[in-house]
Amino acid sequence: MIASTPAPPYYAVIFTSIRTENDPAGYHDMADRMVELAADQPGFLGVESAREEVGITVSYWESLEAIRQWKAHADHQIAQSLGRTEWYAAYKTRICRIERDYGFSIDKG
Amino acid sequence: MIASTPAPPYYAVIFTSIRTENDPAGYHDMADRMVELAADQPGFLGVESAREEVGITVSYWESLEAIRQWKAHADHQIAQSLGRTEWYAAYKTRICRIERDYGFSIDKG
Repeated sequence: MIASTPAPPYYAVIFTSIRTENDPAGYHDMADRMVELAADQPGFLGVESAREEVGITVSYWESLEAIRQWKAHADHQIAQSLGRTEWYAAYKTRICRIERDYGFSIDKG
Repeated sequence: MIASTPAPPYYAVIFTSIRTENDPAGYHDMADRMVELAADQPGFLGVESAREEVGITVSYWESLEAIRQWKAHADHQIAQSLGRTEWYAAYKTRICRIERDYGFSIDKG
C-alpha cells in the first residue's frame, strides 16, 4: 500500500539494503515485528517496502525527534545489531525532509 | 545496487506506485528507458528501485532545479502521461531533501 501521509513538511527514513543469504525465516519475522513496532511509535505516519535486488523501506514520521526515538528504541537496537552481523551485506540509511508531494489514484477519479 | 551518493545535503524523489495489469512489456521497456535517460540528466546522482505489492523508485539529485528539469523532460512527460492512462492504478511522488545519511558494508569492513 502507498502510505497515506499528511501535507508536507514531514520526514522520511529511506533504508536501502542488500541481504546476505543468512537466516531468511528469522529475518522475515524480525522485519514484520519491526514494522508493527514502528507503527506503534509516537509520530509514525506510514511505511512502504519492496525488495528485489535491493530492498527499499521508506518510513514516514512527523519529526526528526520521532525518528531519533525510533532509532534508539531498545528492540529496534537489537534488530539493527542483528542486521549488521547477520542479515545485511550492505545498507544505507537516509534521513530526509519531504518538501512537496503529489499523487494520482484511479479510485479517487 | 545501493546508490553511491555524496555527502548531504542532496535531494531525492520517492516515487511509490501500484501497477495496473496493462501492458507489462511496454511498461518494462519504458521503465528501463527512463532509468537510462534519467542517468544522462544534469544533476543526477543515482537511483534505487524495487517492486513487490508496491513499487518504490528513489532517484537522487543534486538540486531541486535538476528534479524540476527532469520532470519537465519531453520524453519523461510522455512516460508520465502513459503512467496515468495505462500503467498505474495509483502513485505518489514525494520530493525531499536528504539531511543526513549513514551506511554499512561488509566489503568495506
